[in-house]
Amino acid sequence: MTYRAPVADMLFTMRHVAGLDHAIEEGLYGDLSTDLVQSILEEGARFAGEVLAPLNRIGDQHGTPLKDGAITMPPGWREAYHAWAQAGWNALPGPVDYGGQGLPTLLNSACVEMWNAANMAFGLGPVLTMGAIEALTAHGSDELKGRYLEKLVSGEWTATMNLTEPQAGSDLGALRTRAEPVGDGSYKITGQKIYITYGEHDLTDNIVHLVLARLPDAPAGTRGISLFLVPKVLPDGTRNDVRCAGIEHKLGIHASPTCTMVYGDGGGATGWLVGEANRGLAVMFLMMNNARLAVGLQGVAIAERAYQQALSYAKDRRQGRARTVQAEGMHPIIEHPDVKRMLLTMKASTAAARAICYMTAAALDRSHLAGDADAKRAAHERASILTPVAKAFSTDIGIEVASTGVQVHGGMGFVEETGAAQHLRDARIAAIYEGTNGIQAIDLVARKLPLSGGEAVRALIAEMRGTVTGVTKNGDAAFGDTAARLREAVESLDRATSFMLKALASNDPDQALAGATPYLRLFGLAQGGTALAKAALAASAAMKAGETDPAHGARIALARFFAENLAIGARGLEDTVTAGAGFLQDAPLALAS
Amino acid sequence: MTYRAPVADMLFTMRHVAGLDHAIEEGLYGDLSTDLVQSILEEGARFAGEVLAPLNRIGDQHGTPLKDGAITMPPGWREAYHAWAQAGWNALPGPVDYGGQGLPTLLNSACVEMWNAANMAFGLGPVLTMGAIEALTAHGSDELKGRYLEKLVSGEWTATMNLTEPQAGSDLGALRTRAEPVGDGSYKITGQKIYITYGEHDLTDNIVHLVLARLPDAPAGTRGISLFLVPKVLPDGTRNDVRCAGIEHKLGIHASPTCTMVYGDGGGATGWLVGEANRGLAVMFLMMNNARLAVGLQGVAIAERAYQQALSYAKDRRQGRARTVQAEGMHPIIEHPDVKRMLLTMKASTAAARAICYMTAAALDRSHLAGDADAKRAAHERASILTPVAKAFSTDIGIEVASTGVQVHGGMGFVEETGAAQHLRDARIAAIYEGTNGIQAIDLVARKLPLSGGEAVRALIAEMRGTVTGVTKNGDAAFGDTAARLREAVESLDRATSFMLKALASNDPDQALAGATPYLRLFGLAQGGTALAKAALAASAAMKAGETDPAHGARIALARFFAENLAIGARGLEDTVTAGAGFLQDAPLALAS
Repeated sequence: MTYRAPVADMLFTMRHVAGLDHAIEEGLYGDLSTDLVQSILEEGARFAGEVLAPLNRIGDQHGTPLKDGAITMPPGWREAYHAWAQAGWNALPGPVDYGGQGLPTLLNSACVEMWNAANMAFGLGPVLTMGAIEALTAHGSDELKGRYLEKLVSGEWTATMNLTEPQAGSDLGALRTRAEPVGDGSYKITGQKIYITYGEHDLTDNIVHLVLARLPDAPAGTRGISLFLVPKVLPDGTRNDVRCAGIEHKLGIHASPTCTMVYGDGGGATGWLVGEANRGLAVMFLMMNNARLAVGLQGVAIAERAYQQALSYAKDRRQGRARTVQAEGMHPIIEHPDVKRMLLTMKASTAAARAICYMTAAALDRSHLAGDADAKRAAHERASILTPVAKAFSTDIGIEVASTGVQVHGGMGFVEETGAAQHLRDARIAAIYEGTNGIQAIDLVARKLPLSGGEAVRALIAEMRGTVTGVTKNGDAAFGDTAARLREAVESLDRATSFMLKALASNDPDQALAGATPYLRLFGLAQGGTALAKAALAASAAMKAGETDPAHGARIALARFFAENLAIGARGLEDTVTAGAGFLQDAPLALAS
Repeated sequence: MTYRAPVADMLFTMRHVAGLDHAIEEGLYGDLSTDLVQSILEEGARFAGEVLAPLNRIGDQHGTPLKDGAITMPPGWREAYHAWAQAGWNALPGPVDYGGQGLPTLLNSACVEMWNAANMAFGLGPVLTMGAIEALTAHGSDELKGRYLEKLVSGEWTATMNLTEPQAGSDLGALRTRAEPVGDGSYKITGQKIYITYGEHDLTDNIVHLVLARLPDAPAGTRGISLFLVPKVLPDGTRNDVRCAGIEHKLGIHASPTCTMVYGDGGGATGWLVGEANRGLAVMFLMMNNARLAVGLQGVAIAERAYQQALSYAKDRRQGRARTVQAEGMHPIIEHPDVKRMLLTMKASTAAARAICYMTAAALDRSHLAGDADAKRAAHERASILTPVAKAFSTDIGIEVASTGVQVHGGMGFVEETGAAQHLRDARIAAIYEGTNGIQAIDLVARKLPLSGGEAVRALIAEMRGTVTGVTKNGDAAFGDTAARLREAVESLDRATSFMLKALASNDPDQALAGATPYLRLFGLAQGGTALAKAALAASAAMKAGETDPAHGARIALARFFAENLAIGARGLEDTVTAGAGFLQDAPLALAS
């Protein structure tokens, strides 16, 4: 079972939900055309399907053995990585001044989805490199940029993010890695970092580590953290004092090496400051926000892959007889209502998560490219709100869809040979790294809802309402109860948002934090449901204009399924958010044993 | 991290939710006393925690290598199995005439939960043996009973269920294994079976296979299937013509050998008919119903284990600062509202699933032991309704709770060493085997709801309403909105049930099947929520009577959490059931690509 990127649906979502058509019209993307976007997507789809997808199971089985500090990547991976970088995929979103193509985050997001759907363990590495490029571009000194950016943009070298230490995970204020100024502008870095993705590998000759550490006189907590660039190989060609001391044996993404990195046990690793002293967290957050969207895309990606595999199996596998089929013998299980429900749930959830991720990417583009400052700020706030939703909702969907994919396979799903189980194993990490989904929910509620005094989130909700009104006006019976169900979901979100803003302003903000996770889910259902409806409206308009592509009818059916069968969870989630915080007092008792 | 069976909560649930006190009072269980039940549970808890739990990870790592048709179980397993059987645990529910203790299914269910929580791959073997004992007791000839029952009851030998063939999974009508009468009362069995749990192992000297096969003149489909007993070692001490030809490499339960069994490639395996010719499926369903409850208990078990591990981690792990804590430095993550929510969701879901499983077990006991035929029939119908809910709801909960357990651990949850990931891997199968959860939902809707013209399910719903009324009358503020939220859930279930019964009777029963899965979930929420409320009411009464055990307050808090934060999904599920079937027409289009 291979992977075929759903190019038509990706492009349709980009154009009609994430606003690509509109952005191209107004000149936001320079001379980029829809045709060019399509041909890039088709080229990417070919590479993902033909080169990366076949290496997915090989990677899972081989893992990344560590010996004497060196890691051997699985067979075929080095060649695939070089072909991928040489084809320009790593440079696609990179800065033009350093050899990048400067193409939109929106387009790159569709590509990131493809790489990760084909092979999540492969796709993860470039996510880190791209984040580092962004951080260096924005905050690196000209010398550092000159020395590192071109090779990172081309993919000749890769990069890592070094945040976590054993005592400092979600709470980075606790980190202990130290940086001592040498006097020549460089620093000696000493400390241990864990869970460093692609911290060591043999895909490239050098690896550029971005490392959070404390200067000697740094204040305690998160205000005393600085960011350093620490290359594996120093500019003079010698090895830096950094090594991989161990790798984790993980549930999934076996081919993505997760390293314990030791800095400076030979006297200090040489590094250079990136950005201002003690402001490392701000730079890292830039990198992390980019990575958070990419991780959300991993959720979409693994869901799409799991869906394609389950769909294919359900068409082939014959068991029982369905009422709707007249043929002799056993019928394909896709004909059974319960299997249909599973497949539609998978497809609709995936499409909703994709729409949210692409909307986030488009808002990020606009926050950089918009003409005036107000539009930039509005887009930045929109991206800020959507990023935690894109990350957490999509990765939860990734797990759920991969799990349903196993279920569709029945007993065969539990057998590793089938491949369905690998998707579930791989998907599980995305809800954890780059800030657990619980952290995303807190970020959404505590930091993002209050942006512009709540106006930013209100603007998003107003747009959702606009889409619902559009469905109501459309009148095509194929929409079923889409408008009614989405309206309920959006109104639930609106009331829950008011509750959250009020609770945050009260003297007991834990009332808001207690409901952060169900609130984020509710947000995803309303935003995802209306995004699918927006696509369906565009499809409906195309049909009215005479287009006969059956995919248009499918888009309406999918929006309807989501509204009638998934968005209906919104009301219960609203109750949980607004009235479920009673557990805050009860918990110490209830969890005592 | 070891496992401690929650004996107090198990016993409380048995007594006050599953009706153990009442059953003892009316003499249903002979001279069984609550004290005896408690001491048996405590003894079982000791064995589970001290002997079985430490072997869980060993089993996961070693697996069950197959060489020359023989399987080597992991280190320590053979000794543990013998100690377990010698302590009488296998014989606990077995028939007294054959050395069993004849103790209730309810009590055994709590024990089954313990074995599986401690070590699911270990606990699975006896589930099959106990099912075979029940089938043989009810349908075996005296000769077969005499030859096999005693050794199966003692655990000296184990048993298997052989249903699945490559082309016959959920659809057993398609099976091809053949049985030819020899003329001396025995049969020659020829065919291949897959996914045979504990089909081969070195725990015992003999293995008794129960095998579905077709007689030469059998009608096609499910009405032409007979059941045969085929021992690994024949009565004369020679090896039978049956062998393990392969084992599956699975996502989880690595220490439970999943075998491909080949019967008769040396001319025919010798077997004997169990029950009537062509009535094998009825016998197998008896066995399978027993096994379905046991699999539901596995869901509860793995959820409990995952909860205990996550709770322990959340108390130890320190990250960030919580508003509710004054202490210096970082605070245990259990103090963060979002982590509290995760842990309470885990605990409340687990308790609800446990209550449903124990209720099912109690109904099974009553269906055998009740004094008059009407009471027996009513109990049988209740058990019939609850069994698919116990199986599917609990195993879904098992997966969800195990997945949340990984999440509570953050990055460490994804590292296999921690053990949290194993629970998720192990839990995943329970939603698939013994009839996928989709099959359970169809069974509930299509076969169980219509029992006694719908009166059986109405009686259950009436009891749920009674509990809600009890909460309303109780008046203790600690219940919060429990009554209101549970009332909504029960009324949603009631309306959805009416819809289902009507749809089944219509000429388009697919309208019912389309909503079977969300209906079963809705059933679980209403039944589970009211069961927790019933326990909470008993706790409230105990407190009013002067008992000061803090567990009583915790029971009320848990029921409240479930009602206010989980049962609230009921209304949306009702909508899905009653109005979401629009996808039946849309699906062919929406799933075309």
